Amino acid sequence: MANPSQRGLRMPESPIRKLSPLAEKAKARGIKVYHLNIGQPDIPTPEVGLEAVRNIDRKILEYSPSYGFHSLRQKMALYYQRFNIDVGVDDIIVTAGGSEAILFAFLSCLDPGDEIIVPEPAYANYTAFANVAGVVVRPVVTSIDEGFCLPPISKIEEQITERTRGILICNPNNPTGYLYTRREMNQIRDIVKKHDLYLFSDEVYREFCYTGAPYISAFHLDGIDDNVVLVDSVSKRYSECGIRIGALVTKNKLVRQNAMKLCQARLSPPLLGQIVAEASLDVSKDYLLDVYDEYVERRKFLIDGLNRIHGVYSPIPMGAFYTVAKLPIDNADKFCAWLLTDFEYEGNTVMLAPASGFYTNPGKACNEVRIAYVLDKEDLKVALKVLEKALEAYPNRTL
Amino acid sequence: MANPSQRGLRMPESPIRKLSPLAEKAKARGIKVYHLNIGQPDIPTPEVGLEAVRNIDRKILEYSPSYGFHSLRQKMALYYQRFNIDVGVDDIIVTAGGSEAILFAFLSCLDPGDEIIVPEPAYANYTAFANVAGVVVRPVVTSIDEGFCLPPISKIEEQITERTRGILICNPNNPTGYLYTRREMNQIRDIVKKHDLYLFSDEVYREFCYTGAPYISAFHLDGIDDNVVLVDSVSKRYSECGIRIGALVTKNKLVRQNAMKLCQARLSPPLLGQIVAEASLDVSKDYLLDVYDEYVERRKFLIDGLNRIHGVYSPIPMGAFYTVAKLPIDNADKFCAWLLTDFEYEGNTVMLAPASGFYTNPGKACNEVRIAYVLDKEDLKVALKVLEKALEAYPNRTL
Repeated sequence: MANPSQRGLRMPESPIRKLSPLAEKAKARGIKVYHLNIGQPDIPTPEVGLEAVRNIDRKILEYSPSYGFHSLRQKMALYYQRFNIDVGVDDIIVTAGGSEAILFAFLSCLDPGDEIIVPEPAYANYTAFANVAGVVVRPVVTSIDEGFCLPPISKIEEQITERTRGILICNPNNPTGYLYTRREMNQIRDIVKKHDLYLFSDEVYREFCYTGAPYISAFHLDGIDDNVVLVDSVSKRYSECGIRIGALVTKNKLVRQNAMKLCQARLSPPLLGQIVAEASLDVSKDYLLDVYDEYVERRKFLIDGLNRIHGVYSPIPMGAFYTVAKLPIDNADKFCAWLLTDFEYEGNTVMLAPASGFYTNPGKACNEVRIAYVLDKEDLKVALKVLEKALEAYPNRTL
Repeated sequence: MANPSQRGLRMPESPIRKLSPLAEKAKARGIKVYHLNIGQPDIPTPEVGLEAVRNIDRKILEYSPSYGFHSLRQKMALYYQRFNIDVGVDDIIVTAGGSEAILFAFLSCLDPGDEIIVPEPAYANYTAFANVAGVVVRPVVTSIDEGFCLPPISKIEEQITERTRGILICNPNNPTGYLYTRREMNQIRDIVKKHDLYLFSDEVYREFCYTGAPYISAFHLDGIDDNVVLVDSVSKRYSECGIRIGALVTKNKLVRQNAMKLCQARLSPPLLGQIVAEASLDVSKDYLLDVYDEYVERRKFLIDGLNRIHGVYSPIPMGAFYTVAKLPIDNADKFCAWLLTDFEYEGNTVMLAPASGFYTNPGKACNEVRIAYVLDKEDLKVALKVLEKALEAYPNRTL
């Protein structure tokens, strides 16, 4: 029997994935599982997006252009203008979700053995795509006790070697909900400029910034236009995770030329998803405001509720719809499994994401979990009660 | 300015892509361009597929399972049974088109530096995805004069080194329309077995076999079940190139485990495409028969027409909807460009794909073109006339 690839075997399995079969078994036992573990919003997709696909009048569902429909890219360029991101139609390449944008960004900019610096905790799939591209991730650890702010710039520069080619940030951040400050973004710009690095900036949560602090896009930074590769997606913005439409945006022509070869190899991004995404860009401001207000309320409700539970601590997330919280437990992987295998409160339990999946080496963060506030307040209320009762019952509680 | 990746710069641009801007310019001059260069059928998508998406009653277009909907995979398993391909639901992973299946197959089975043997001429994007995966393609050249049959088995074995890990075939073949015989498939099986190689088998054109000769799937071969990785797609079968739904099918558990990590990293295949594909699997037999009959007629019409033109030769393609033809010209790249820049007949011209894009080293095949018979007979008639007139007018004609 032919052996599978070593690179595949080396690819880590996320802790969430290991928990999924346990959640299925809990459900099979009649337990209701509240999913706080994934970024799948319960917010309805804009009706205008659904209508577009219901009214489709094509006879043939044919290839679309490899870079995406021109009309969609035009609307995206206008959308970015609302955020003072000044990019043209030609700078925008439509991808199959933010996922493909990350992969194509790595493949277009980096060669095997090249290194990128990534503040941790970080979205686990960056590592997966780095692995595909043969790229080495050098983590810079941020900590819950400092609210996940960027470490001193000297700590970042320490990680720079002769193979360092880029810095990757997610802003607002998944999993921490952190929003980089203007000062931090300027520091990042300075390093990028000094060492001529790529700045891969995943800004898919830009609509979700909850404090008065400004959202600073990588494209707002002066003097590094050719270094910025923006990763975007409509998934979270319009609750359209399934349509697989994202974008790679860069003013760097050579990077775009490389990316376009990859786009042509995979022929085209999803046709139907593009139709939905293009229509959704016309959604009313009311829709976006409603969604925003909803998350503001959930955030307050969740974070207040978490910090009221004895021994639990969550910093206040400034954006996205996640928080990383510290629990009074020995080990989050074990606790999250125990929640699904050995616990229930009034027929309910919760599924959380152990933060170990977001760190190269969890170390002292092994008691942290990521909690997504993608459920409505009634559900969050039950979930918080379940979590409180679970922490009381958990045999390896530490506080 | 940060430099793009070397791997990206090394990635070849297909000759078709270079011709596209010329075609646009010809159209801007008011010339009608008959596209025989791409595999985009003009056949209508099954109504049942279109209806499924028009009737969508979801409120949220959410993530689908990373491996694809279970219901879709179940129907696919039943579909394969019609072709005596005995695979279970668990053996099938839904991908974003055949393209993603090829990439995931390479990444799951092969490591950087590994080699695969590919009969040429071959679909150009195999090389692109091999490049992404760091895999080396060792071509085995087949020739138009021998109807593109498989070369003697000794020629294939000559290419085997200690890094050889697989053989890739496309059957029925794009670009040649060749259908591997039972004898050839058995020879391939013997090499695969002897050297414990992967057999990557792209069988997306299985519905399109026009002679009495049987279609032999890689899964029909005895004793290499764990070596076979089938690449599939609904794109051509149902004229649904845009929905991006394909499949990677293998009984090799470890390969599937690797592939599933990649599937989880990119989260999910297109939701809407899966809905269309699942419904389309219920299309009436009449639809498939009509499509089949249409291609049978076009094939006869095109091949007879080509061989009637002085100096042109096309072998009879046994499957798919392409043929590779030899033209009485100096160089197909130049001729195909000239057709778009310097020629028109009664306001019409044709766009063909120079075969150079399908060879690692075109050599004496530099006068070959690929012609797709994806247009109806009326259009093919005009296109043939245009080609005949063009060959009469072309200044570097050789015969």
